[in-house]
Amino acid sequence: MRVLGVDPGLTRCGLGVVDGRPGRATMVAVGVVRTPSSADPGERLLYVETELGGWLDRFAPEVVAVERVFADVNVASVMTTAHATAVALLCAARRGLPVVFHTPTEVKAAVTGSGRADKAQVTQMVTRILGLDVAPRPADAADALALAICHAWRGAQDARLTALAEAARR
Amino acid sequence: MRVLGVDPGLTRCGLGVVDGRPGRATMVAVGVVRTPSSADPGERLLYVETELGGWLDRFAPEVVAVERVFADVNVASVMTTAHATAVALLCAARRGLPVVFHTPTEVKAAVTGSGRADKAQVTQMVTRILGLDVAPRPADAADALALAICHAWRGAQDARLTALAEAARR
Repeated sequence: MRVLGVDPGLTRCGLGVVDGRPGRATMVAVGVVRTPSSADPGERLLYVETELGGWLDRFAPEVVAVERVFADVNVASVMTTAHATAVALLCAARRGLPVVFHTPTEVKAAVTGSGRADKAQVTQMVTRILGLDVAPRPADAADALALAICHAWRGAQDARLTALAEAARR
Repeated sequence: MRVLGVDPGLTRCGLGVVDGRPGRATMVAVGVVRTPSSADPGERLLYVETELGGWLDRFAPEVVAVERVFADVNVASVMTTAHATAVALLCAARRGLPVVFHTPTEVKAAVTGSGRADKAQVTQMVTRILGLDVAPRPADAADALALAICHAWRGAQDARLTALAEAARR
């Protein structure tokens, strides 16, 4: 399963493409889209849309995994994150791709075994799982890869459980 | 000044076009874009994008006025509102149009004289200001018109103050 992980943001939007199945994952691409906070908000969204759309066309993931953001931190940053999330939803919908959301806790638990792991531990495990020589930087890039791994592993598991449940019903 | 007011939302997105200058305003168009909450979030955003883009092309406003949303109400509704706001930002940026934000308090103060007016008072004043025979319904449509009136009046005032300040500096 090829997954594009998106750590949504306007200042930095982390993107990571992973091919994975439960227990295994290889990195296809990683990067960060940056827009200056001094730029017009609409222009920033247009730029993220162009870049994100380019990644979808170039790497052709089957699904887009986005970090689910909660409104419990600073209001302005939640809003720009929500705007970047909307761009991901639009870009995916335009290409007929499903979007799934995972919470930071789910992502941390999937890659480190603990929902309370810190950023350094997440980066360390992502580096080890993907067999990378150097840790992906910045943290947004590592987070996007972690999201993609999380979905490739959990998504396959969920699909298997759904299939088992359906088989049991027959 | 022709303004498109947008009361952002996915279940109901209010749209109102007003031609106005301080103390005067006439309605050009009003409507609501609705998408079912059962639909795919990305598909909902695409639909709002198509409709909103159509309004911009048809009515050619000079500026888009959007309600500034705060994250102090329910989290899920703030997120979908922020997603709809992102669509407005993208549609406007694609056409080179400026987007301005006004808080609910600013809008209420502009049309009723009180920042603490209730929805019924806002609808009543919008109806009176625009000389309409019937009140615009639902409230989202009236709110979009109120936003457009607010900006047509405040925007012109702000531009005048800026010009006076510049003249004083010379």
